[in-house]
Amino acid sequence: MTSLPTRLIDMALAEDIGTGDITTDYLISCDSQGRGIIVAKEDLILAGLDIAKTVFQRLDPQVHLQSAYKDGAEVVCGETVLQLEGSLRALLTAERPALNFLQHLSGIATHVRTYVKALQHSRVRLVDTRKTTPGWRVLEKYAVRMGGAHNHRMGLFDGVLIKDNHIAACGGIQQAVAAARKQISHLIKIEIEVSDLAGIHEALESGVDVIMLDNMDIAHIREAVSVIKNRAIVEVSGGVTLNQLSDLAQTGVDLISVGALTHSARAVDLSMRIQ
Amino acid sequence: MTSLPTRLIDMALAEDIGTGDITTDYLISCDSQGRGIIVAKEDLILAGLDIAKTVFQRLDPQVHLQSAYKDGAEVVCGETVLQLEGSLRALLTAERPALNFLQHLSGIATHVRTYVKALQHSRVRLVDTRKTTPGWRVLEKYAVRMGGAHNHRMGLFDGVLIKDNHIAACGGIQQAVAAARKQISHLIKIEIEVSDLAGIHEALESGVDVIMLDNMDIAHIREAVSVIKNRAIVEVSGGVTLNQLSDLAQTGVDLISVGALTHSARAVDLSMRIQ
Amino acid sequence: MTSLPTRLIDMALAEDIGTGDITTDYLISCDSQGRGIIVAKEDLILAGLDIAKTVFQRLDPQVHLQSAYKDGAEVVCGETVLQLEGSLRALLTAERPALNFLQHLSGIATHVRTYVKALQHSRVRLVDTRKTTPGWRVLEKYAVRMGGAHNHRMGLFDGVLIKDNHIAACGGIQQAVAAARKQISHLIKIEIEVSDLAGIHEALESGVDVIMLDNMDIAHIREAVSVIKNRAIVEVSGGVTLNQLSDLAQTGVDLISVGALTHSARAVDLSMRIQ
Amino acid sequence: MTSLPTRLIDMALAEDIGTGDITTDYLISCDSQGRGIIVAKEDLILAGLDIAKTVFQRLDPQVHLQSAYKDGAEVVCGETVLQLEGSLRALLTAERPALNFLQHLSGIATHVRTYVKALQHSRVRLVDTRKTTPGWRVLEKYAVRMGGAHNHRMGLFDGVLIKDNHIAACGGIQQAVAAARKQISHLIKIEIEVSDLAGIHEALESGVDVIMLDNMDIAHIREAVSVIKNRAIVEVSGGVTLNQLSDLAQTGVDLISVGALTHSARAVDLSMRIQ
Amino acid sequence: MTSLPTRLIDMALAEDIGTGDITTDYLISCDSQGRGIIVAKEDLILAGLDIAKTVFQRLDPQVHLQSAYKDGAEVVCGETVLQLEGSLRALLTAERPALNFLQHLSGIATHVRTYVKALQHSRVRLVDTRKTTPGWRVLEKYAVRMGGAHNHRMGLFDGVLIKDNHIAACGGIQQAVAAARKQISHLIKIEIEVSDLAGIHEALESGVDVIMLDNMDIAHIREAVSVIKNRAIVEVSGGVTLNQLSDLAQTGVDLISVGALTHSARAVDLSMRIQ
Amino acid sequence: MTSLPTRLIDMALAEDIGTGDITTDYLISCDSQGRGIIVAKEDLILAGLDIAKTVFQRLDPQVHLQSAYKDGAEVVCGETVLQLEGSLRALLTAERPALNFLQHLSGIATHVRTYVKALQHSRVRLVDTRKTTPGWRVLEKYAVRMGGAHNHRMGLFDGVLIKDNHIAACGGIQQAVAAARKQISHLIKIEIEVSDLAGIHEALESGVDVIMLDNMDIAHIREAVSVIKNRAIVEVSGGVTLNQLSDLAQTGVDLISVGALTHSARAVDLSMRIQ
Repeated sequence: MTSLPTRLIDMALAEDIGTGDITTDYLISCDSQGRGIIVAKEDLILAGLDIAKTVFQRLDPQVHLQSAYKDGAEVVCGETVLQLEGSLRALLTAERPALNFLQHLSGIATHVRTYVKALQHSRVRLVDTRKTTPGWRVLEKYAVRMGGAHNHRMGLFDGVLIKDNHIAACGGIQQAVAAARKQISHLIKIEIEVSDLAGIHEALESGVDVIMLDNMDIAHIREAVSVIKNRAIVEVSGGVTLNQLSDLAQTGVDLISVGALTHSARAVDLSMRIQ
Repeated sequence: MTSLPTRLIDMALAEDIGTGDITTDYLISCDSQGRGIIVAKEDLILAGLDIAKTVFQRLDPQVHLQSAYKDGAEVVCGETVLQLEGSLRALLTAERPALNFLQHLSGIATHVRTYVKALQHSRVRLVDTRKTTPGWRVLEKYAVRMGGAHNHRMGLFDGVLIKDNHIAACGGIQQAVAAARKQISHLIKIEIEVSDLAGIHEALESGVDVIMLDNMDIAHIREAVSVIKNRAIVEVSGGVTLNQLSDLAQTGVDLISVGALTHSARAVDLSMRIQ
Repeated sequence: MTSLPTRLIDMALAEDIGTGDITTDYLISCDSQGRGIIVAKEDLILAGLDIAKTVFQRLDPQVHLQSAYKDGAEVVCGETVLQLEGSLRALLTAERPALNFLQHLSGIATHVRTYVKALQHSRVRLVDTRKTTPGWRVLEKYAVRMGGAHNHRMGLFDGVLIKDNHIAACGGIQQAVAAARKQISHLIKIEIEVSDLAGIHEALESGVDVIMLDNMDIAHIREAVSVIKNRAIVEVSGGVTLNQLSDLAQTGVDLISVGALTHSARAVDLSMRIQ
Repeated sequence: MTSLPTRLIDMALAEDIGTGDITTDYLISCDSQGRGIIVAKEDLILAGLDIAKTVFQRLDPQVHLQSAYKDGAEVVCGETVLQLEGSLRALLTAERPALNFLQHLSGIATHVRTYVKALQHSRVRLVDTRKTTPGWRVLEKYAVRMGGAHNHRMGLFDGVLIKDNHIAACGGIQQAVAAARKQISHLIKIEIEVSDLAGIHEALESGVDVIMLDNMDIAHIREAVSVIKNRAIVEVSGGVTLNQLSDLAQTGVDLISVGALTHSARAVDLSMRIQ
Repeated sequence: MTSLPTRLIDMALAEDIGTGDITTDYLISCDSQGRGIIVAKEDLILAGLDIAKTVFQRLDPQVHLQSAYKDGAEVVCGETVLQLEGSLRALLTAERPALNFLQHLSGIATHVRTYVKALQHSRVRLVDTRKTTPGWRVLEKYAVRMGGAHNHRMGLFDGVLIKDNHIAACGGIQQAVAAARKQISHLIKIEIEVSDLAGIHEALESGVDVIMLDNMDIAHIREAVSVIKNRAIVEVSGGVTLNQLSDLAQTGVDLISVGALTHSARAVDLSMRIQ
Repeated sequence: MTSLPTRLIDMALAEDIGTGDITTDYLISCDSQGRGIIVAKEDLILAGLDIAKTVFQRLDPQVHLQSAYKDGAEVVCGETVLQLEGSLRALLTAERPALNFLQHLSGIATHVRTYVKALQHSRVRLVDTRKTTPGWRVLEKYAVRMGGAHNHRMGLFDGVLIKDNHIAACGGIQQAVAAARKQISHLIKIEIEVSDLAGIHEALESGVDVIMLDNMDIAHIREAVSVIKNRAIVEVSGGVTLNQLSDLAQTGVDLISVGALTHSARAVDLSMRIQ
């Protein structure tokens, strides 16, 4: 990541600490030191280590942090992900927010990795969508990469994706693609969503760069690929499940996008132990 | 909710729109009007309707919004959750951020409801934890209530929860409870985490208000309840699954807390259709 | 304090420095070093030392700061509270904002201490109210603790306090207490404001945790205490003056809350001398 | 005021409401309407009415507000300062923050008015200082004007005030004044602090616009005025009490500055009654 | 523009008004109404009208604004660009910030239009660069479009532009392009900067989408175009002046980028007249 | 500068980096180190060096920065303005924002210096105006000082400037000046804009401190100066060009204000070279 998500870390600490950690502030002396470890309680793919570190550093800038892993690593249940030494107050107060970041992001990376493994003998690119937790776009897309998949566009600003409503408003695929081409930067490609062969033919004539096959069955996808014949990049989208991945990959499409990579990953289990 | 999560809505729009929705801005005229509906694609418990509305209002303050449902309602697959009429650009640009809020929060409410139903003939209170998505604490705890469960403390500021590290640092349960009692507001109760009978006895002597039984098996929980005999509120915590709920409820405990209510709910499916 | 009031410090510096300290910037060389001391000009209870230090550190991160006192200490007129050594520009520009924090918070702590002394042979707990300077809640409640008194709830979020309008809207004390109990966290207690014996009886039946006797005279308070007989914590509130404290303490109440602790303390006198 | 103190209002509401007004949210229906009045509980000079209104409008944009008074008005004990009609939840939740603003600012205006009255037959201008509550500079200086006094400079940016440390660093009064004159805007005047006659003579030679007599006794002030003979504006400063005002005014000085106007005013009593 | 530059408008008002417009606040009654017009004092291309309107609306939400022009229009010297009617205080205080926005953005649009006219019989696309005023990227790129030119990438996030240092770090053009292709979104194109024929050949082999000819003379550019033969989009960059545009256009390149479009436009003259 | 423009630097980095510098992040290893120099590509007056340094430090707090120049220095084409050594990623990503600050501010300082030189044998003070780029007021006025000229008021808050609309609203010059004098701080002077001799006479009678001659020709200015005879400071304003400066200076006026100092300076050319 180019920059840490400062604002989200601020919000996480503010919403949890609020007017003060009354248990820790009243029971632990401000000069107590402590040592702790964060341990994986299940097999997982790590993501968010730098953020977790930063959460502790916010409460104790002198905290000593050490890890044998980097984001993207496979960690086996029982392994120590992070060693900490510093203000005992800081360790106890920051524990939950730090773990919440780590569990959420590692949860996504771990979930993504199962999809990536299902595609490992294929040249197909697995990509995420814009179905991310509000406020977490850059972080969750980072976790997707740590899981081994790729990112679709980051948002509405770095790629053109023309859907049926855009087409209807412009009066047709050709008009829509032409209008976009005329105005967008020369570094941005145009993708269009189609749902039948007629749409594919029109899209090809309009000179789009990428065609998204929306909610088609395997047979139609296979036919679409043979019609398109490398004249455009082909993306499959819409309710794709883990079981279908392998079959979809064999249709010859270039990309498969899966919203569930980000919107339906459960948190993985990690816990902190004070020593 | 007392106040809408303004900052998170700002972040959601900023991270998605960035320097501009280049597809919509270049293909849809700024004076085009449109009508749309948001439809449930599966059975769900609704949560986040006001936030979704606000997302659309940000981009078109004149948008007309109407709904037959309130948060907490059961919505059947296929039903229309929200009708929209306003700037077509606003509808298209706000669609994904608005749905992301609605799908995440309704996902939690729907998930919670399955747990609530498993406890419906019991007087036990099902509560959430602090294992929430950073930045989303108030929202996710609201969704838990919409699902029918209750909230544990909101953060570190509105309840004392003494854990083993606090006890160790104070030199014992009695000392820890006494130190807390001396300093906290008279409106805050003290909860202590114990893992065996010795701890329970000491906790009762110290006069705590709530005892949390951490990771105990059913037999020990039953014994603990009979020892405590209403001298303190009893909470069970630690890796509780949906299947165990009914058995746990019959042990006589007062509260069962479940982290999975918030950290492992998948998004439910809702989509917007322009008409 | 868990965290320094960063935002208020920013505002204090911004509102005073604005587009620049034109006297200091134009008359003092940016590499001049200076030494100064902050001296108590009257007897006082110290509060806000860390904030004052932070104000200087904002303008000169290398400033050297030393103090023989901690917050809560009694400081005699003439004593040096803080020694400073660093950029002369920083010392001169930060002087007034730093003193404004220190004088305001020490003013409250000093004021509170006079009340605390009036209650020193009593087991009654002296508490503050929500009548604090907007933007200063956490700081002023901290100064109250430094003065030796206790905090009532921090805000509307960490305690239930049912007043007459809440009771009227719910249709009675019993209904109000029941509605609150059903929804609040199990770690929060319920306090109710009553003004006569009928209210006290109803409150006791409803099972409230704390009863606030609002604007009652000494005789009625004494009667109320004997009626309540430890079945609830008893708080006295409403226009309490320093002179009444001792008499009120002898009625047997548990808490006395005094708005004047925070809303009517004058600043104590401290000044900085460059050496 | 050119603009309302939006940020301070935000902070006031955030610090009080936090994660929610649990009493009001759980006991009052969100569609209950209510009417209330804010009443003066003692004679006072009003200041802060627009801010109090804004606090209520934040929680209920439709609230209906009406007042027979404007800031600066004398209000007699028992009079209604503001009538309110709107969401009962909003009235109850906003009551304390709104009153805290009104009581603090009216407290200053009322305090200032007693000083102003002591000077009413004099041409001397009573001015405030920079000894204001951090974060409240513009508001408190506004309350000073509502009380009938004038403002000294708003901060370090809109006036040059040369003190002994500046003089020492420049090598003398003449050098300090010349350096300032050379660099400041032609619209800013230069004031210098002096403590004896030698300083006054040097200041006059340097061509300063304003001379501040710091902590001088009446006799020396009178002598200083006769020496200066209208060649500079004369300000008296330093520990001025209400009792001395009249005598000071007769010395012929132009301005008297009093820190206590802002740093030692107690809150006046106002309360809200729901009808 | 999808959204107005709220933050920059806030900063503009804050830096100019500060603690108050002391001339207007003290001389103009707060209920005075006024009418004014903003007039072009030279021929210009309009840009920033909505922002100028918003500046006035901030100070008077009821201000009435009317204009016969839209951004992008040619306005002749002497024409009225905007009619205003509202609070006289608001008109006078907002005048300068509003004009500063309008003069800066119209200055860019007007400057750009002279370049666009020099290319009007050509199919070459004139584009801007990232040499914009910090804080103004989206606004200045909008003004470029109003002037009739196109935008290069908005920032470092929506296009890959590989320069010599990137190539050196990767060990060659092929490696650099391959590394980028592997990781970027399928909707982003890759541009590479080359300075000689060898670079062009290598770039073509690597399959880049766009080749930027950096600081080449006309003869070499012509040769480069014939070598590339539509296998990549060709951009010319580096110190391009208005005089060279026509010759450059005839070389057959696709894009010409000019930093001076944004970094060296002077403000055009507009003024407000109160009527 | 008292404080660096933190917010503008944040905005500059945010608008350029957005969701990530995809070229640098994907092609340069995060542990690569690099060395670079920033070189003047034309003769210039330096301004903004500290800001440029801060931009690099934001992305690499360990970056080593060294310069032989200070702001205000004349730098000859080809000279190295800044040497850098640190993270190669940081150098490449921060290059453009850092240069954009440096080129803009040095552009103003360089432009100002040409005006200053035209006045070098005169005692006239050259001053800027409020015609600055929104968001950049303090920075651009700093660059004006680095160029050798002076600042007029910083904004509407630190000087009274009465224009025709203020006069009309008050019913005359005398009334306007009296109203201002009564209310403003004793440290602020009053300037009034006049356009003819009648106005000058009335202004002198009213006792203003500064008279601005607006858009008068040289003959009238000369007459005005002789009428005013040092009873007020005289400022000339309105469309002043570089060529007129010398003639204007000889009329005996005290100040000449020139909007073009800030609103029409072009960026000077500086570039970064990685070594």
